[in-house]
Amino acid sequence: MNETITSRQNTRVKAAAKLRDRRGREDQGRIIIDGVREISRAVRAGIEVLEVFVYEQTLGSDGEQLIAQLGDPVEIVLVTESVFEKICFGNRTEGAVAVARLPVCELSDIALAEHALVAVLEGIEKPGNVGAILRSADAAGVSAVIAVNLATDLFNPNAIRASAGTIFSLPFVATSSESAREWLDERDFQVLATRVDGAINYTEANYTGRTAIVLGSEAQGLSGDWAGDDVNAIKLPMLGVADSLNVSVTAAVLFYEALRQRGQR
Amino acid sequence: MNETITSRQNTRVKAAAKLRDRRGREDQGRIIIDGVREISRAVRAGIEVLEVFVYEQTLGSDGEQLIAQLGDPVEIVLVTESVFEKICFGNRTEGAVAVARLPVCELSDIALAEHALVAVLEGIEKPGNVGAILRSADAAGVSAVIAVNLATDLFNPNAIRASAGTIFSLPFVATSSESAREWLDERDFQVLATRVDGAINYTEANYTGRTAIVLGSEAQGLSGDWAGDDVNAIKLPMLGVADSLNVSVTAAVLFYEALRQRGQR
Repeated sequence: MNETITSRQNTRVKAAAKLRDRRGREDQGRIIIDGVREISRAVRAGIEVLEVFVYEQTLGSDGEQLIAQLGDPVEIVLVTESVFEKICFGNRTEGAVAVARLPVCELSDIALAEHALVAVLEGIEKPGNVGAILRSADAAGVSAVIAVNLATDLFNPNAIRASAGTIFSLPFVATSSESAREWLDERDFQVLATRVDGAINYTEANYTGRTAIVLGSEAQGLSGDWAGDDVNAIKLPMLGVADSLNVSVTAAVLFYEALRQRGQR
Repeated sequence: MNETITSRQNTRVKAAAKLRDRRGREDQGRIIIDGVREISRAVRAGIEVLEVFVYEQTLGSDGEQLIAQLGDPVEIVLVTESVFEKICFGNRTEGAVAVARLPVCELSDIALAEHALVAVLEGIEKPGNVGAILRSADAAGVSAVIAVNLATDLFNPNAIRASAGTIFSLPFVATSSESAREWLDERDFQVLATRVDGAINYTEANYTGRTAIVLGSEAQGLSGDWAGDDVNAIKLPMLGVADSLNVSVTAAVLFYEALRQRGQR
């Protein structure tokens, strides 16, 4: 370990703080990961962690264990409270924030099992919803998540946090709706598009074969790329006063229905 | 309508702004509701709306329609941007914020159908999660939600917002774990307690009879009130790297599994 950085104007600190903005992430090709659990999961998933900023006073025993395990070439950078606050942006006070290389995954990198279940997210606005969907996808055994026309970049810090770090554990790809549709069609995926006016109750669909579940934004719905004779529009029953659910809730119910039909384990 | 209020020090404005804090809500016996959709749903649910603060420049057509429908004794109070910001607390910019009488519902107010499905929330920390659970409960036909040992009051503005206003549409009661357990036992409820180490896969439980689904906080789990021979501990399969789901996601999957078993409509 080096000496403690005490200046908020330190070059390295300024570069890390810029990763809070999409532009900073794109310019540097790096992302920022808050929280001990999230950093641990990134490391376990093979993400290239470059440096970890540590404020020792709030680092718990889990954090100490993580730091002890991280060897070369990860640099551990001790910082003062004021410097840590600048990097944290008020997001977390767990005493550890990592900078990692931006993971890049393309459609061609996805290895598909015969009965793969894939989720497609179109135009989801909130990074928190994206992260929450990834967390459920990981838990329910979804093979890959394809993001199309996303309002943010994939690894927004709020998405990482809402995913509890599971965002790194499955293929997560950004592409266009058109390319995603083509890729799925070429691989014989059944396409289930989630629509509030879908004709099919979601439990009546069959998820046991190769299936893509397509989810859109609450405000916009899905684009024309997810319509047509070979697309089944499914919906969740809505028995109350509201006409829609949060998209991350819809996603979880569908993923777990697929898992139930597939025999759970 | 009266003249526009221009002073942030106006007594009425100050009283409304205090409703952002739990203490203000408890002192005044009132709550604050942000957003046109939320206010509309409160009105439709029979909540006693007392006044609506309106900043006309950002009020859309939905908002205008709502205001036109609200007759006596609801007072429409026009305010300037600066006054509106004070009441909004940066939460919403939809141009309408309502003050309503705090709804009070007790266990004895709940009318139970023979096969009632009830949700019990123990010690949930985040109002956003509470609201998200209410939204799913409303959609999936849950009869009532009982909150025990909640960290916040029931009608926290963030809970109202996360529920999209559905929080007003079903009985929502605060009590102790002990009273809730006793009430359920006296009414022959099957108790399904959600635990990460639950012995029963959630799809193997039978939700068709009178059933209570008990959900705890992610950090703390459930208290001893939800243990014993007559409680079935259920869990969702976790196939990925994480060992738990967000509590609002778990709730939705369980509510919809119950609905599926009950025949959906």
